[in-house]
Amino acid sequence: MSPTPDCSLDRHCPLSAVTRWHYEADVVVLGFGASGASAAIEAARAGAKVSLFEVAAGSGGTSALSGGEIYMGGNGGTPIQRAAGFEDATEDLYKYLVMVGGPNADAAKARLYADNSLRHFEWLQAQGIEYKNSYIAERCIEPSTDDCLIWSGSEEAYPFVNEAKPAPRGHCPKFVGMGGGRYVMEKLAGQVSALGVEVTYNARALSLVADEYGRVHGLVVRVGGEQRYARARRGVILCAGGFIMNREMVKQHAPLMLRSLHPIGTVDDGSGIRLGMSVGGATVNMAEGFSTVPWYPPGSLVKGIFINEHGQRFINEDCYHGRVSHYMLQQDGVRIWLLADHDTYGVSDMHTLAKIEIGAAGDTWEDVERELKLPEKSLVSSVAIYNHYAARGEDPMFRKAKKWLKPLDKPPFVALDCRKDHCFFSSFTLGGLDTLPTGEVLNEGREPVPGLFAAGRTACGLPRWGEGYSSGMSLADATFFGRQAGRRAATA
Amino acid sequence: MSPTPDCSLDRHCPLSAVTRWHYEADVVVLGFGASGASAAIEAARAGAKVSLFEVAAGSGGTSALSGGEIYMGGNGGTPIQRAAGFEDATEDLYKYLVMVGGPNADAAKARLYADNSLRHFEWLQAQGIEYKNSYIAERCIEPSTDDCLIWSGSEEAYPFVNEAKPAPRGHCPKFVGMGGGRYVMEKLAGQVSALGVEVTYNARALSLVADEYGRVHGLVVRVGGEQRYARARRGVILCAGGFIMNREMVKQHAPLMLRSLHPIGTVDDGSGIRLGMSVGGATVNMAEGFSTVPWYPPGSLVKGIFINEHGQRFINEDCYHGRVSHYMLQQDGVRIWLLADHDTYGVSDMHTLAKIEIGAAGDTWEDVERELKLPEKSLVSSVAIYNHYAARGEDPMFRKAKKWLKPLDKPPFVALDCRKDHCFFSSFTLGGLDTLPTGEVLNEGREPVPGLFAAGRTACGLPRWGEGYSSGMSLADATFFGRQAGRRAATA
Repeated sequence: MSPTPDCSLDRHCPLSAVTRWHYEADVVVLGFGASGASAAIEAARAGAKVSLFEVAAGSGGTSALSGGEIYMGGNGGTPIQRAAGFEDATEDLYKYLVMVGGPNADAAKARLYADNSLRHFEWLQAQGIEYKNSYIAERCIEPSTDDCLIWSGSEEAYPFVNEAKPAPRGHCPKFVGMGGGRYVMEKLAGQVSALGVEVTYNARALSLVADEYGRVHGLVVRVGGEQRYARARRGVILCAGGFIMNREMVKQHAPLMLRSLHPIGTVDDGSGIRLGMSVGGATVNMAEGFSTVPWYPPGSLVKGIFINEHGQRFINEDCYHGRVSHYMLQQDGVRIWLLADHDTYGVSDMHTLAKIEIGAAGDTWEDVERELKLPEKSLVSSVAIYNHYAARGEDPMFRKAKKWLKPLDKPPFVALDCRKDHCFFSSFTLGGLDTLPTGEVLNEGREPVPGLFAAGRTACGLPRWGEGYSSGMSLADATFFGRQAGRRAATA
Repeated sequence: MSPTPDCSLDRHCPLSAVTRWHYEADVVVLGFGASGASAAIEAARAGAKVSLFEVAAGSGGTSALSGGEIYMGGNGGTPIQRAAGFEDATEDLYKYLVMVGGPNADAAKARLYADNSLRHFEWLQAQGIEYKNSYIAERCIEPSTDDCLIWSGSEEAYPFVNEAKPAPRGHCPKFVGMGGGRYVMEKLAGQVSALGVEVTYNARALSLVADEYGRVHGLVVRVGGEQRYARARRGVILCAGGFIMNREMVKQHAPLMLRSLHPIGTVDDGSGIRLGMSVGGATVNMAEGFSTVPWYPPGSLVKGIFINEHGQRFINEDCYHGRVSHYMLQQDGVRIWLLADHDTYGVSDMHTLAKIEIGAAGDTWEDVERELKLPEKSLVSSVAIYNHYAARGEDPMFRKAKKWLKPLDKPPFVALDCRKDHCFFSSFTLGGLDTLPTGEVLNEGREPVPGLFAAGRTACGLPRWGEGYSSGMSLADATFFGRQAGRRAATA
């Protein structure tokens, strides 16, 4: 029988109701994905006794579903960037991170990460993660080889290119095929194990324990059907993922994400965020999420143009696929097409996940417009304006870079059907608890909640704006700021 | 000296630290705008001893800055709707409220309000608020006369008109000129006084008082430089407005609203919302706000078309000015124009607040396009497509209603400059604490926080989506759901 029947994820358990601690540690970590592993490693290295609880039967979390790509650079470039000819300045990385953070970017986190990104690369290698010294110049989502460096954001596209010198910054681990995230997690989990962190699997978080002043003292978990109390002498670190799998929370907070039918998540039920809120933690950007249909490769399609159901263009198509996809979600209606001509089609090279089908085809753009049942001249005018300027190497409306400009004038013409309910349109959430760069969870007045930390998608981190997300940012944030939280909690 | 130095808006004060209650009541209400007044009236009528605290030196809050317009109908129509020839069905009001609530509309609140809106009209009259039996058919923002019924939303526009039979529902009080909100507040404040509610002005809320289980027991206020404790035996009702005047919170949560330079608020510093969060209350739609440039009257301008800096249309211009303005905010860049021809200009009738200036003029649309330095054919194509269909009484792209369609073909032509930093562009926030229709504040798991209620813009109510706001919805929500909270708290 529970002495605290009212406790829940959303109502903390009073310290006075705890009669026995079943676990005692300096630092309690919830969640064994990349952020939890990184936090546990650094806390243990700082001398703390660490106890880690994970709801699943093994390590990995949603990090293990990813490609394992990590966004890094600055400081003159990682060795792999430099070998590929990119001297990536810290200020360029910083400016890019602030721009892609959107209108409420976290400049303090961007600063800390930009200054220490190269050291973070070295740290990852020290954990046993290997990187091949190689670079892929072509547009790609995730290498099918064990190659490393890719362009994984909108660095070369307007408006980013105007403010920050571009460089490729997506570092994929030396792992053949998809599934690099699993490889990264195995290396991190190996360190967690070697450091003697006490790991309890199949442990579901029920509630935080806090005293009447709101200081966090521990965590209540269910293990083997029993309610158990874990004392955290210095701090609890919430690394329990986002909330994309909790469809009620998505509907309430990020309804735009409901338009994307393929959530990327394992647990990601919002439990970490809710635990933080139960002791007054503030949330930020709960409406924001990453979502994408991976519409390239082939890179030739970047020379095509997207139109909405008004026949209008809406973005420079040389942006990262996720940025373009986020604009797709925001258009009126559900019908979106990617227009290509004979020279730009090349769909045989399309990523197997994408499988975007042809919605209409014809020998003239008038034919395509008619087949799509669009208002007369709507699509045709958009193509005419685009072609007129593209022939001169210009795109005054959306500023696609010159190398992607080519009149779409070689029949046959096609309109690829990018309807959100027809394509693979994946998503995860970017909103979460407000934290300092140290991982300390903040209340709405931006004072730390004593004894509480968060990292990964439980926090609102560097990646916090759907329009700005770049591949590798979530794992970069999870590992780097997981480490900060572990270090700070160990010495709190 | 305070026994609880750590207490703040964001950290509740533990009950055990309270040594003396300076005030004792059944129900404590924070804020003396429309929601606080309505809550206090109903709580007192239900037999509760009520104590109301207001930070300003008098009643009114932001409600008193408004036009006093209240959105009501359904139930066959109010007497004023019926006299004007509108039999407004409850289901039509309900459907409209759900549609304008956006993707996470609160159907339970819409249901309760639609079913009881006519009774609410009678209640307002019973408090002494008078309404003239008159109707204004023309487009207007707020009558300069004492007339009552106006079209105050997007009822007749696509997509709303397809789902719910339209009716005018904005009821303005019998008060000549702007300032009807002050009149409404004086009537409500008179009732508060007559019912013997204890009112303390110049009282700033500092913190909620809660026990270790999270139940709310009272409020800490600063009065005359002293920290004082107010006990609420049954409940605290937070009616302290939104957060539009707290620019840090706006930047953090609703950065789009920063583009609107004229916040509508008195206190509205987010203190009510923060108090709720300090005891685990969840927030909803913190990124959402109302914002508008009142671009009509004259109604003739509704026959014009808006274009963004790509020369593209983006909405059916017959929507409510706030919906159109919200789309303006969302366009790329800052340049927006309203195009009109000789027959539709009529700016002499423009609302004095609006003062939208001419950005370009010419005898051909090519001249205007050139003067605005837009890409060749961008504006011209948009006008040509619009004119082509308007001549046939159609608008297949955006579905503006037939009565507003007329080719823009009588020179001279003008582009009115609607840049956000040039026009009067007002705003207030729509995000706030999640509540039940009874006013009970909910945590993220949608369980009530014991002893805590909220109403008005401190809560996320019926109006919760910038694209859907209609004039009169905020006061409708504040008064009606303030009443529900008062009643429920009195009997809690």
